[in-house]
Amino acid sequence: MNDYSEKGLLPAGLADMLPPAAAREARINRTLMDVFAGNGYLQVKPPLIEFEEHLLEGSGAALASKMFRVMDPVSHRMMGIRTDITLQIARVATTRMKQDPRPLRLSYSGQVLRVYGSQLRPERQFAQTGVELIGPSEASADAELILLAAEALGALEVENFSIDLTLPTLVPTLCKELGIDPEIAVSAREALDHKDAVALESYKAPLNEILIKLLKAAGPADSAIEALEDISLPEAATAQIEALKNVVAQLQQSAPDLTLTIDPGEFRGFEYQSGLSFTVFARGVRGELGRGGRYCLMDGESASGFTLFLDSLMRAVPRRPADDRLYLPFGTSLDQGYALRQEGWKTVAGLAPEVDIEAEARRLNCGQFLGPDGITKLS
Amino acid sequence: MNDYSEKGLLPAGLADMLPPAAAREARINRTLMDVFAGNGYLQVKPPLIEFEEHLLEGSGAALASKMFRVMDPVSHRMMGIRTDITLQIARVATTRMKQDPRPLRLSYSGQVLRVYGSQLRPERQFAQTGVELIGPSEASADAELILLAAEALGALEVENFSIDLTLPTLVPTLCKELGIDPEIAVSAREALDHKDAVALESYKAPLNEILIKLLKAAGPADSAIEALEDISLPEAATAQIEALKNVVAQLQQSAPDLTLTIDPGEFRGFEYQSGLSFTVFARGVRGELGRGGRYCLMDGESASGFTLFLDSLMRAVPRRPADDRLYLPFGTSLDQGYALRQEGWKTVAGLAPEVDIEAEARRLNCGQFLGPDGITKLS
Repeated sequence: MNDYSEKGLLPAGLADMLPPAAAREARINRTLMDVFAGNGYLQVKPPLIEFEEHLLEGSGAALASKMFRVMDPVSHRMMGIRTDITLQIARVATTRMKQDPRPLRLSYSGQVLRVYGSQLRPERQFAQTGVELIGPSEASADAELILLAAEALGALEVENFSIDLTLPTLVPTLCKELGIDPEIAVSAREALDHKDAVALESYKAPLNEILIKLLKAAGPADSAIEALEDISLPEAATAQIEALKNVVAQLQQSAPDLTLTIDPGEFRGFEYQSGLSFTVFARGVRGELGRGGRYCLMDGESASGFTLFLDSLMRAVPRRPADDRLYLPFGTSLDQGYALRQEGWKTVAGLAPEVDIEAEARRLNCGQFLGPDGITKLS
Repeated sequence: MNDYSEKGLLPAGLADMLPPAAAREARINRTLMDVFAGNGYLQVKPPLIEFEEHLLEGSGAALASKMFRVMDPVSHRMMGIRTDITLQIARVATTRMKQDPRPLRLSYSGQVLRVYGSQLRPERQFAQTGVELIGPSEASADAELILLAAEALGALEVENFSIDLTLPTLVPTLCKELGIDPEIAVSAREALDHKDAVALESYKAPLNEILIKLLKAAGPADSAIEALEDISLPEAATAQIEALKNVVAQLQQSAPDLTLTIDPGEFRGFEYQSGLSFTVFARGVRGELGRGGRYCLMDGESASGFTLFLDSLMRAVPRRPADDRLYLPFGTSLDQGYALRQEGWKTVAGLAPEVDIEAEARRLNCGQFLGPDGITKLS
């Protein structure tokens, strides 16, 4: 245990975030929470652990195998460490905040833990920041969320981001309307999700033709909608396309510069979504920046929301120059240091008389020091 | 599971923080981190869980029984959920940041979990925000930390706070110098900590006389120092008193308005401290606001730091009036909403045409709405 390299060793997928990354992540999180608060979203903070059965309801079941569990010696019941915060917000909305007026706008920010990382996201702890809009089922609610995500990314100066819209319920609805066997319906959905044209061709008409058309429709919003309009679909599937068109029209009217794409067959990660869903990407940045969509609360209430992933955002947000640190030589008065900090300086105080103030300032990564003639920049 | 009261039930000592408390806690935390950053402290963020043996070293051993443990299926080793962040910062300082120039100023902010709450703090999850100053052993370092805590509390507008200084090593050092049996030394230290005058009287001279004088010395800094100066102590114990006097002198010179008290026998919670330690209180507020002190890192390096407890701070920080929410009727343009948010408004958008805009604004807890004549305050 005296071996420092061993002492510093952390379990796979867990990491110490060091300077300046940790402050940068905190700044990104602040900006997001500020944008959410500016749009009337109220912060809630559920605990890191709670009774496991509450974390395994609905969409929580999908992450059951990824949840750390501990015994609660107080209640003698099993508790789980949360793998996702969305489900906790849904719990809060349907219990403690059930009586609050709808639309209920909630925001959150916190850490989640998973027993295993995924191939795309090897981290086992990551930070989630997001919002849920509880109550309304109107297209304006879907549009508000997408515009909110865009406003948040704009505040972070993320460039070249796009919103990829999907309808995870489209293929299941279509198959039901066409009287397709449920097992075949699942395989068709998966084939479309995997963009497996050969498999899609193999279904019986008219399903195969529709699936191929859905596959080809994926792309920029305008051309995708044009292609979707050309597909002859049964009633309920058509209604979903109409709802999508409605949201896209609202988005294009409000934010004509927003880059929107549509992939009507994308399904992965949206298993519990009940309507329009979306993923946020930025050009040249590995991993999704976030994802969201419409779902139903346990009590049947409509809800929609999105989560942004801070690890991906760290790769997408432009870096700012390092803080300009100001060295205050030993003996600088408290009042003087305080006044400089109020001006916005990050001060670093000398704790012992210096032999060479300039060298000491440099050693402590300060770009300037307070000299007899005021603030002196180091060359 | 359809019973909402059961669904909302959380394990004892764990809670959902709802609006406006969650945003308030986040605001308090931001203010603290800003003050720390302003003083040159760099943020680090260790993980929530790590190998248990790293969490059990040194002062971590004291919290071993309070640590949740989980098996890491990747490494097949036991991991612990942190009960305290200080120890993780010490680990970072002695491993990954071992080569960084000293003094090394680090800050942190995060959640910790404990298997059991304590009588004074029944919560099993709480938020810790603090700093560590690694390297220097000068009195100026102790003074910097206490002044930093004071600056942070000042920024939060906490009133009537006081810093209670203690020397947890004083009695052990004294007993050693007097050649007292180690078991008796421990009981003497505990008796003084419990302010048990009868027990203190029972020790042999000169220990009993000194202990009673130390007991009586507790109080405001000036009178306490006067009383301490009157006690005849062996060399090493005298040196500790001198070091305390030095820090107090520096504090009184820098911040004459700071309320300082001294309790030379206080020991609880400072079992691993190696020098001057302190507790922060505010008049009329239950619980400590924070605590800190000097300790040694695993590799022998000097360090000192403090942690502030956000749950106590929530009771001490004055409440601000609720955010002024502005209702934007359905159809308000994105640009107009954005411009109002840039002015600082918290906007709440209508998602469907309103029958009565004013009533809708009121229902959604908005103090004003955007009408045809601009922003109209609700009476």
